[in-house]
This record gives sequence, C-alpha cells and structure tokens, in this order.
Amino acid sequence: MAEGLKVLGAALPADVKLETTEFDLGARRYHRTGETLPDSVLAELKAHDAILLGAIGDPSVPSGVLERGLLLKLRFAFDHHINLRPGRLFPGVRSPLAGDPKIDFVVVREGTEGPYVGNGGTLRTGTEHEVATEVSLNTAYGIERVVRDAYRRAQARPRKKLTLVHKNNVLVHAGHLWTRIFEQVGREFPEVTTDYLHVDAATIFFVTQPERFDVIVTDNLFGDILTDLAAAVTGGIGLAASGNINPSGAFPSMFEPVHGSAPDIAGQGKADPTATVLSVAMLLDHLGYHAEAARIEDAVAADLTGRTGTRTTTQVGDALAARVSA
Amino acid sequence: MAEGLKVLGAALPADVKLETTEFDLGARRYHRTGETLPDSVLAELKAHDAILLGAIGDPSVPSGVLERGLLLKLRFAFDHHINLRPGRLFPGVRSPLAGDPKIDFVVVREGTEGPYVGNGGTLRTGTEHEVATEVSLNTAYGIERVVRDAYRRAQARPRKKLTLVHKNNVLVHAGHLWTRIFEQVGREFPEVTTDYLHVDAATIFFVTQPERFDVIVTDNLFGDILTDLAAAVTGGIGLAASGNINPSGAFPSMFEPVHGSAPDIAGQGKADPTATVLSVAMLLDHLGYHAEAARIEDAVAADLTGRTGTRTTTQVGDALAARVSA
Ligand SMILES: CC(C)[C@H](C(=O)O)[C@@H](O)C(=O)O
Ligand SMILES: CC(C)[C@H](C(=O)O)[C@@H](O)C(=O)O
Repeated sequence: MAEGLKVLGAALPADVKLETTEFDLGARRYHRTGETLPDSVLAELKAHDAILLGAIGDPSVPSGVLERGLLLKLRFAFDHHINLRPGRLFPGVRSPLAGDPKIDFVVVREGTEGPYVGNGGTLRTGTEHEVATEVSLNTAYGIERVVRDAYRRAQARPRKKLTLVHKNNVLVHAGHLWTRIFEQVGREFPEVTTDYLHVDAATIFFVTQPERFDVIVTDNLFGDILTDLAAAVTGGIGLAASGNINPSGAFPSMFEPVHGSAPDIAGQGKADPTATVLSVAMLLDHLGYHAEAARIEDAVAADLTGRTGTRTTTQVGDALAARVSA
Repeated sequence: MAEGLKVLGAALPADVKLETTEFDLGARRYHRTGETLPDSVLAELKAHDAILLGAIGDPSVPSGVLERGLLLKLRFAFDHHINLRPGRLFPGVRSPLAGDPKIDFVVVREGTEGPYVGNGGTLRTGTEHEVATEVSLNTAYGIERVVRDAYRRAQARPRKKLTLVHKNNVLVHAGHLWTRIFEQVGREFPEVTTDYLHVDAATIFFVTQPERFDVIVTDNLFGDILTDLAAAVTGGIGLAASGNINPSGAFPSMFEPVHGSAPDIAGQGKADPTATVLSVAMLLDHLGYHAEAARIEDAVAADLTGRTGTRTTTQVGDALAARVSA
C-alpha cells in the first residue's frame, strides 16, 4: 500500500493536492473490536473520491467474516456493479503457457448480484440432516447495466469483440436472462462482434487460445474464477489489478489488487507491489487522469521488461515512482 | 461411439458375452418426437449394467433442452453422485503449459446437488423487470457420501492427498457445510493429507502447479469448470474421460467423454475417439474388469506416445483395438 501511494504521489501533477485518509480495517481491527465495517466508517468512506483497498484476509479470522463483512459489504453498499479486471501479458513477463501468447483482454465482471448476494441459509444446522442453500439473484436491471458497459468498452477497442460467459445450458433461468439481455443490448452496437461461451469452455480457451479474447462480460462468480485464471496465464496474481466501479459517481469506486493478503510474508519487504500500483493507475483513469494512468502503466511495462534478480517491495516502488516522475 | 464399442469388444475375455442395446437419443430424436428422455427409455436403461453415453448437443436445439432433459436427467434419475474425472498428462502428449509438468490427479465431482438441481425460476419473465434465481441445494447426506468416496480414493493412492475445492468465504452456507463434513470425515482417514482451496485459487494452481494435486473433491459446478480446465492442461478435451457413478449399484453407472458433440465434423472421420475409449476403460473398471481396463489405458498410452500425422477416427479405433487384443 505504501508503494501504491508513493507512485500515486509521483504521478499526480504538481498542482493537484492529494488528500488521503487511512482506515485501519481488516483482521487487526476485527480482533480488537469485533467489527469489520461499522456504518460510521462506511459514511466516512462515502465522502471520498475513490478508495484504494489493501489486500485483506488472515487465517486467524474465520473464513467469510472479512470477505462478506468488509470487502463484499463495500462492493454492495457502494453499488460497485462494474468489476473491471484487465488480463494483459506484459512484454518481458513469462506466462506459464508454452509459446508466446499475446494476451490483452479485459473481464467486465458483474459485482452486485448472482451467487454473491449472500442469500441462502441452513436448516438443521450442524447435524447429519443439514441442508444448505445459496440463492443466485439476477435482475434484468443489474445485467443490462453491466452488459451495456461491456459493449461500450468493446466498441472503444480496436478489435471490438465481446464474449458473454455463462452456463446457460444448466443454469437456465439466470443463463437465459443473461443471454436475452446480451442479444438485446447488442442491437445498439452493430459494430461489436459477439460470441458466447459456457464457463467451462472459457477456461479451456484461456489456456489454449487466450488471444481470442478482447472484452468478456460475465456474472459475479464466473468472473471471480476467470479473473484468477487470467492472472495465472498472464504471469501471476502479483500483477493483476482491479477496479470496483460505480460509473454513476454516486459512491466512490474502489481499486484493489486481485490477490489476497499474504500474512506469512507481511513486513518482510518481499511482496510485489505491482498489482497495487496498477490498481492506482486504474483509479487515476477512473477519476479522469488518463495521461497519469498511462504513465504508470508505461512505467510498469518498462520495469517488467528489465526485471532481474529480486528486489524488495520498497525497491520496486521506488523504481516505479522514479520512472513515473522522470 | 463405434470405436469405443470396438475397443470394448477387443478388451473383453472371450468367454464374456457382451450384450448392447443402442438408444437413439439426442438432437435427432428431439426434432422427430419432441422428446428428450421418455420414462419408458429410462426404465429400459435401468435394466442395463452400465451406460456408455455418446457426446450430445446440437446448435439446432435450444440451449439447456438436451443438457437438462437428457444428460442431467440421467445423472439425477440414476443418482450418479460420484462424477469421476481423471486429469492425467500421458507421456508423449503436449500440454499447453510450459515445461513438462507431471500431471496425475483425479477430480471427484459431486453429481446430484449444488447449483445443478434446476431449482429456481423467473419473475416478470421477458420484461425489463425480470428477476431470475438459481438455487444451489446442498445436503449433509449428499456431501458426506461424495467426500467419503474421495477419501477412500485418496487413501488408495500412493500420495494419499485430498484437496477440497469450494468458495467458503463467499458461499458461506454451502461452503461451511462442505468444510465441516470434509473435516469430520477426514478423522476416519488419518493417513490422508488434506488441504482446502478456494475455486479461484485452484484454477491458478491448475496452471502453475498442477503436480500438487492428487485427489480433488468439489461441488457440481466447480467440478464442471475445473475438469474442463484439467482437460485443457492435460492436452485437450479429446482425451478426457469421465464416469457418472452410483457406487451402490442400484442404478447403472454411466460413462462419457467430457467433451461435447462436434456436429460440424460429424461423419467426417475426424473426431478423436480416445476420450470415449478411455471412458470404456472406466466402465470396465467399474464393472470389475480391472485388468481389461488397464490394458485399454496402456494401449492408449502407447498409441499417444507414437502419434504422428493425422489419422481418421476409425484408424485410431483400429489401432487401439489391435493393441488391446495383442
Ligand atoms: C476475497 C473474495 C471475497 C473475492 C471475491 O470472491 O470476489 C476475491 O476472490 C476477488 O476476486 O476479489
Ligand atoms: C453438457 C453439460 C450439462 C455438462 C455439465 O455441465 O455437467 C458438461 O459440461 C459436463 O461437464 O459433463
């Protein structure tokens, strides 16, 4: 996080005054207070232009507590319906895939619906007769806005290609709704070429033909899975950035590395800050600082090309900040 | 299918009389009769020892009709709760992954619950206010039997390692039930080493460290996604076999290639019958013909090592049948 803020400071024009507020959320606060995200903090956060979220999670906290109580709470409370995750293989970065695939796509993951709504429950909890349900909720309203956003992005890119990923042959209720709206909105974008893939087939193509993808639009859970796979084939989760975007501006958008925390190496200066730095670039882009965002991306690209040996977290941050201010 | 039956015939001991019944299901029948799987056919199928299913599906049939009405109907009606899918990179086969990863794991996918139950529906269907739900149903009973099966398989393998894959930090109701039962049943198998991975993290390791997996147990949907990815990293869906198993024997188990049909090349003699032949090996193994199953697997391994040029479907089937009977 420190390196992300360092690069952010280096990228901003001299006449822009950056004001930051630090919120100590996550495992430490949970252990101290039992709270994850009190409403008062939510209200304070709302007053900011954007949020940069450090990776959260710690094995000392039961699974789901911070995820549902902090990260997902933020995404839902601020209606972050566009979860934007680029999948780009930077020059000089080794992919685990053989050959030298050219990978440059972006996943537009729905962020506020689907199996992530937290709807469901258990019956006869803890017994041998327990039943547990998870309900995926999908609305025409929620799907249409993310699908239209994805079409716009596809329209603005040279290849103008949009792929819908779902599982409409099994999850027929949600799948047919996604498919209907995808086709309907597509009529407004005659220049965009479209196709459809089942999520299982999509994972195959991520590995065998990642070049074929330009923009992908998909549901919350499939997007979660596909973007980790995308990170893997583009050289690792240490480089994957993401934005949780509310395009209306009614609430602050939030930017975060796709990776989780790594409590086992915390404070040792080993973590690669690149994914956070690239998330800062997405944040700047979202706030209208397009040139500054591009400078950060170029700095990362140049830094990755020249990487040899191991550097500390601070060394990587310093190198990127130096390139950005140069 | 013809090549699968050819190899089956070649593998069986001379004194075993093979009786087969052919059922013409799928797209052709659907167009002719509007039926997918009438109850009378289900009753006839029930009288058989095992089912070998050819790949189904055709773009002329609306998405979901054959999948839900035929394939999933069979899996549910015959309570195929163990969906077994080996992920093995045969010597001589090129993986799309760089280096030469050693891949030899098996996915035990739950086959009768989860998001596949078909539970859910739509409200204000076809309008801009449509809402669609999908309900994932998970029971302690259903999870326990597949988890125990997976522990037994892990126990019987040299590495004795079992990984649970779920998303228990988001799908907390179903995820915690899976996790609880996984830990509980594990106490009966002290020799088996276990770990847990979120499904998104699992896709990363499939690509970056596939060697780490031995036996994987997971839910119906995650298993669907992971096994296509497994097929991709082990050289393609043309080689991936599967079994839909009901260990009780109350109903016939069913064996099928993981791949779908390829109507664009039907009848051209281009399709690789290997996945079907490997499914025949799984069928034989299930019926107690272990030596015969091993002979087929060895034949496939030998054939794959020596593959050069392109051969027709029949040529591959003939070559495998010749090796099996030799
Ligand atoms: C931590 C978890 C809740 C989160 C998700 O599932 O969305 C993460 O995997 C991600 O992709 O941002
Ligand atoms: C065709 C489809 C219903 C099926 C599934 O999703 O289970 C297939 O993808 C598979 O993996 O066998």
